Amino acid sequence: VATRTIAAVGEFAFLARILPQLTNGPDTIIGPGHDCAVIRCGDGRYLFTIDALVEGTHFRRQWLSPRQLGRKSFLVNASDAAAMGGRPRFCVVGMSAPPTYPARDLANIEVGIAAAATECGADVVGGNLARARQLSITIALVAEAPRRTVSRAGAQPGDRVYVTGTLGDAGAGVRVLRAGRRRRSLAADAHAVRRFREPTPRLRAGQLLVASGIVSAMIDVSDGLIQDLGHVCSASNVGAVIHATNLPVSAAYRTIMRTDPRLALSGGEDYELLCTVPERNVTQLERQRAHLGCPLTWIGAITRGRRIKVVDAAGRPMSIEAGGYDHFRGSR
Amino acid sequence: VATRTIAAVGEFAFLARILPQLTNGPDTIIGPGHDCAVIRCGDGRYLFTIDALVEGTHFRRQWLSPRQLGRKSFLVNASDAAAMGGRPRFCVVGMSAPPTYPARDLANIEVGIAAAATECGADVVGGNLARARQLSITIALVAEAPRRTVSRAGAQPGDRVYVTGTLGDAGAGVRVLRAGRRRRSLAADAHAVRRFREPTPRLRAGQLLVASGIVSAMIDVSDGLIQDLGHVCSASNVGAVIHATNLPVSAAYRTIMRTDPRLALSGGEDYELLCTVPERNVTQLERQRAHLGCPLTWIGAITRGRRIKVVDAAGRPMSIEAGGYDHFRGSR
Repeated sequence: VATRTIAAVGEFAFLARILPQLTNGPDTIIGPGHDCAVIRCGDGRYLFTIDALVEGTHFRRQWLSPRQLGRKSFLVNASDAAAMGGRPRFCVVGMSAPPTYPARDLANIEVGIAAAATECGADVVGGNLARARQLSITIALVAEAPRRTVSRAGAQPGDRVYVTGTLGDAGAGVRVLRAGRRRRSLAADAHAVRRFREPTPRLRAGQLLVASGIVSAMIDVSDGLIQDLGHVCSASNVGAVIHATNLPVSAAYRTIMRTDPRLALSGGEDYELLCTVPERNVTQLERQRAHLGCPLTWIGAITRGRRIKVVDAAGRPMSIEAGGYDHFRGSR
Repeated sequence: VATRTIAAVGEFAFLARILPQLTNGPDTIIGPGHDCAVIRCGDGRYLFTIDALVEGTHFRRQWLSPRQLGRKSFLVNASDAAAMGGRPRFCVVGMSAPPTYPARDLANIEVGIAAAATECGADVVGGNLARARQLSITIALVAEAPRRTVSRAGAQPGDRVYVTGTLGDAGAGVRVLRAGRRRRSLAADAHAVRRFREPTPRLRAGQLLVASGIVSAMIDVSDGLIQDLGHVCSASNVGAVIHATNLPVSAAYRTIMRTDPRLALSGGEDYELLCTVPERNVTQLERQRAHLGCPLTWIGAITRGRRIKVVDAAGRPMSIEAGGYDHFRGSR
């Protein structure tokens, strides 16, 4: 192992090896390995998370305006809070930028962060600015935790698998941006690009699904459905079957990708919520559905074993690529 | 302003322009612009801060072992908490690294972070790993806040100026490392390099000085005494006079720098505490001195006006370089 690189080991294998080595005190209710940690502060429980957007890895400079980049860097953190039913409250911002980066653009990134924070009910309370070769924005977020804790662990065989909103739009948006086509006027392309630029963290849905006790496990879909479902399955020690024909995709996705489900399965950056629901809670879920603020689609079921299968309309297994986004293997 | 770069504007001028634009809610007791924010969580008050170490800006890879780098990246955050009298409790870690970076080294960075956190009473509760061209470590820290709030603002004309420990060692250490000399065996060089590699955040001193109500303002000396004193003076709307002969320097510093006070005034990375003490609290300070866990030296006084003067043994003003470390103007 001594001389292996991170790329060779892989991000998640690396984290899986490191995380169990961290021992924590009694005020850490949930430690590393979930979308957020759960910590005890005073008489309250809070979520704590950190996420970064790095130029060349997560975005190219010409793909988003500075303000959009700022907004997105906050919203990807808010999505982690949504996955555990939290209410964003405070964030600190670590920015790195080359000395040649325009001060006005940096100011607009801050404006975007502050605007997104305000919309989500959070304050930007501090920051740091360091010189680096690449532009990057790291945000750490503290959110109010719900009374119940729902994490990646907790899914049981027989639970239904649901996902909010639509999948694959952001992945299709990256494809459009990368092609640099001049067809942006096409409504489908514009929709996909907008979904890449402006994630909509499902805070209300997350809060409601956790507070009501409906869901047994939840995660935000940031690295692609299959990969994030994989995190739920390994944390819960279960498998899953997903019905490809049930995957919720937008009209824009269908225009761009036709019937190809690959970006919906593993495109990444959807920032939707994936949750598992025990059969006994389905009636209650149907009663709450109208209050979620977004669509929620039944896409499959949790199974025994640790395998994830995707099946077509006839129930035949489809071959899926190992799929999902690993920074150390792919590149924007 | 539109086309000016960050380097042209300068880090602090940039932050000074951005910070007032952030409006915060009632649970943000102190917002951006200090070593830490003070936030209300449940029935408690907490400090929240973020800081980064970036390769090429703060360190070169060969200057520290991965474990030392991990330790230092936590300790610079702990120093921010010390400056406001806090007790570190929880941190999250944002790491960025090139895909070619050895997985073992990254693991050792994590080990260093976890060890330093444990020593300071904090848990590492989460993290994120992203691909980037440079190695960098960003840590966000939540610390218990003391009942009293002491920040950079609060210094009054007539207050004494004190500093913990010794100044300029880390700056001298960088000079030794940069020269790459083969004289590391010299005790003085080894001491200076160790002080660069292993900062000792003054947590106990910070907690005691704040809890006792002795200090009127405090800051950690991370960018050089003159620059950080400048932050206190501008936040407090005062000036200061510093007696160069009173600056606490180590025997190692004297061996390396002789009588040259420049690195003690502006070398950066000291991670000592600079505090101001009203004359009426001096007796109480003397009673507490033995409990601080480190030396505390009287180096000058707060004055009216906004100027900072450094005077020699005869009281004559010395010319000081604008001094202090600005990432966007200097480089490691």
